[in-house]
Amino acid sequence: MTLTAAQTVAALATIAGSDNVVGDPAKMGAWLYEPRKRFHQSAAAVVTPPTVEAVQAVLRWANENGTGIIAQGGNTGLVGAQVPLSGNEVILSLARLDRIRSIDTAAGVMTAEAGVILENAHKAAEAEGSMFPLWLASQGSARIGGVLSSNAGGVNVLAYGNARELTMGVEAVLADGRLYRGLNALKKDNTGYDLKDLLVGAEGTLGIITAASLKIYPLPEDYETALVNIASPEAALELFQLMRQRAGARLNAFELIPWIGLDIQMRHGMLDRDPTASASPWYALIELSRMAGTAPGALQSSLEAAFDAALISDATIAESLADRTRMWAFREQMSECQSREGASIKHDVSVPIAAVPALIGQGVTAAETLVPGIRPVPFGHMGDGNIHFNFSMPVGADPKAFMAEFDEAVHAVIYDVVLKLGGSVSAEHGIGQLKVDLLRQVKDPVALDMMRAIKTALDPKGILNPGKMLRSVP
Amino acid sequence: MTLTAAQTVAALATIAGSDNVVGDPAKMGAWLYEPRKRFHQSAAAVVTPPTVEAVQAVLRWANENGTGIIAQGGNTGLVGAQVPLSGNEVILSLARLDRIRSIDTAAGVMTAEAGVILENAHKAAEAEGSMFPLWLASQGSARIGGVLSSNAGGVNVLAYGNARELTMGVEAVLADGRLYRGLNALKKDNTGYDLKDLLVGAEGTLGIITAASLKIYPLPEDYETALVNIASPEAALELFQLMRQRAGARLNAFELIPWIGLDIQMRHGMLDRDPTASASPWYALIELSRMAGTAPGALQSSLEAAFDAALISDATIAESLADRTRMWAFREQMSECQSREGASIKHDVSVPIAAVPALIGQGVTAAETLVPGIRPVPFGHMGDGNIHFNFSMPVGADPKAFMAEFDEAVHAVIYDVVLKLGGSVSAEHGIGQLKVDLLRQVKDPVALDMMRAIKTALDPKGILNPGKMLRSVP
Repeated sequence: MTLTAAQTVAALATIAGSDNVVGDPAKMGAWLYEPRKRFHQSAAAVVTPPTVEAVQAVLRWANENGTGIIAQGGNTGLVGAQVPLSGNEVILSLARLDRIRSIDTAAGVMTAEAGVILENAHKAAEAEGSMFPLWLASQGSARIGGVLSSNAGGVNVLAYGNARELTMGVEAVLADGRLYRGLNALKKDNTGYDLKDLLVGAEGTLGIITAASLKIYPLPEDYETALVNIASPEAALELFQLMRQRAGARLNAFELIPWIGLDIQMRHGMLDRDPTASASPWYALIELSRMAGTAPGALQSSLEAAFDAALISDATIAESLADRTRMWAFREQMSECQSREGASIKHDVSVPIAAVPALIGQGVTAAETLVPGIRPVPFGHMGDGNIHFNFSMPVGADPKAFMAEFDEAVHAVIYDVVLKLGGSVSAEHGIGQLKVDLLRQVKDPVALDMMRAIKTALDPKGILNPGKMLRSVP
Repeated sequence: MTLTAAQTVAALATIAGSDNVVGDPAKMGAWLYEPRKRFHQSAAAVVTPPTVEAVQAVLRWANENGTGIIAQGGNTGLVGAQVPLSGNEVILSLARLDRIRSIDTAAGVMTAEAGVILENAHKAAEAEGSMFPLWLASQGSARIGGVLSSNAGGVNVLAYGNARELTMGVEAVLADGRLYRGLNALKKDNTGYDLKDLLVGAEGTLGIITAASLKIYPLPEDYETALVNIASPEAALELFQLMRQRAGARLNAFELIPWIGLDIQMRHGMLDRDPTASASPWYALIELSRMAGTAPGALQSSLEAAFDAALISDATIAESLADRTRMWAFREQMSECQSREGASIKHDVSVPIAAVPALIGQGVTAAETLVPGIRPVPFGHMGDGNIHFNFSMPVGADPKAFMAEFDEAVHAVIYDVVLKLGGSVSAEHGIGQLKVDLLRQVKDPVALDMMRAIKTALDPKGILNPGKMLRSVP
């Protein structure tokens, strides 16, 4: 017996307070439409519980009534995990749980509630002379709960790991409303199964994260940043190995950018001036951190070694904060700049680092064969083997026709290359609703069975983000 | 209907080959008795499958017959996870799966089978100019499958993480014999639940790991190692913060050792000469790695800064490999040296790093109140908040009487301090059979329920290491 939307709203108002429930579809836009506006579904209601206890009460009620609950943070996800699928779900926004509960630099830990905006978490850490090293393009609106539930990555995974690796413990409300108390500040704890890592990256399908203990680190004294001309992805791989050998864990970022990215951004006035040394088919944005008491110059001497080894021919090192900011703007505008050139077909994929040149080479060939004139724009986290393998439409093409004709076909050939190279069809963005069918096609069937068994064990009525990640559970 | 031991041996011989089955209890000693010989139970049989397929066949058979299967690696675990509990189990040794399947320095990954001895994994990585940075006292006999199933830590967790963080993917046989194919060389892969981290640290209760993709790193050019005199655990914490600020991720180790450890080792001739600068109530063994192309001296300049800040008064820096080896021997002999002084009561605990001084202070007071003359020997991974909080019996006490009278009582007061400080009662060694009851007392009951639900979902007949970690499942 499914409740009507009106009954749902009334029940939620009783549980969480009527000020914390939205039942009018006309007022739900901020929660329903994600950044790319790919998913178009209504919700039965939106509830924004003001306390963890209220989250528990909502879940208890939902579990009794079989109501689907979608946890939502900043609504910045790109695969539709945080927006409705059937239209009958309740969106549970964590936005009001936005306290930094504690911060302890000596212990290297900050406890933040799920609704804390990522940028505010950065500021809270910096106010104590520390950093929380997870930087994303969407950090001004993404919230900790969503960042963790999607196991977000970003530009510093190389040195500090992704959201999972940056989380020491979580607090989460289970499907039946019970509270899992897993917050801790322990670097080592071998007392049972790793429930934290199961909840992180589960996209709200196993429990709703309400708070997390996050690792914070001493602020480096400075950064050394360069944009390096690179002849090819193969040369980029060699340079990456050299940097890794010389800089070890101080190597924060090694980002690959093709020339077309510079061309587009300069043509559309997105950069105040060219941040590169000279024209080059590829660039690498490389950044090292320098800890207190360490002599500067590690990046320069490494680049000189690369030059001596004929690995690179030209580079420019940031000499001011303005230089560094411009170099990073060049990198961070890579996704946005493509929209200035019409439609594009996007893939968030990863392969073993050593296979990045093969991925780019084979992928470009396959797409160009399929769509003459298509413009490859592969860029991203070379150091993680994670390439945002995007393709802009041919110059002058009709955007809608291009997408209608080629989107699926290009996906097919790119994923084919990725899988042959032992890669992942979702390196950063997750599964959500966008890639549920794809997951079923490409994932080890035993792994899928294990996932289903775990989902059924922890959410027997299937109320947590129903239909996301795994279609047919329970 | 339980099979007799003879029926079990006969069935296993058919499945895995009679050369690979031991049915004679007199020949099982190597598999039955773990290092501390605390657990005394027989087994129905020992089987050493020569292939992954044979492991699968054994599990299929066991699942059909309801036979308990205990996965065993090097039999070095300290909590009895790898030895029988009821006496009716079959020990499945992974020792014959001992191949390094592949090693790829460019991708930073090595795929090793579960039976590979940890030291051989080190050698394989080093032969390719890389390192697998997981070092343990038992590395000459511990095997990869056991290292992962116990989520082992060791002396370099500070810089590189524990076994879980060093594992990219695993291959594992499930309770019903199916093979989970989770090997990969991906730094980023957000396609579903984190099954890898669930299997790692599960002590063979959710599946049997047969191989793993392990992270390997470029070898540092050199290490800088020092033994520093420290006035107190509080001063050690301050020095640790300073080192972390200046060395960041190059700080490999920060190990705390009390004076009594030096005293015992010198008295028993365990060190060829005193590795310290001078007498001190505490010492810190500090090690930094130095990457290629980096100037030496980072440790020295950091220690000078600590000296200027009046944090330390004396220190000695290793000037040769012999010096470094002696310093590490001093640290690594800490556990062994206690046995030269009679019985000792041991705790493998962790607290948030900032709470280490409180742990030591309160724990020592509590134990000394309980047992006048007891000799505290707390040592270990200060940088991880992980202290091996051991107590040697009073001088001249009777070992058996001491243990009989005080073992449980000292445990109780130490665990009480640990829990009040938000710590863990098993930082490194796990639960096994030794701490099953303790776990039930101290763990969040919701977490225990989640663990039971997952166990039942993945091993419905409860054949995988029955009674370990969780007593009563299913």
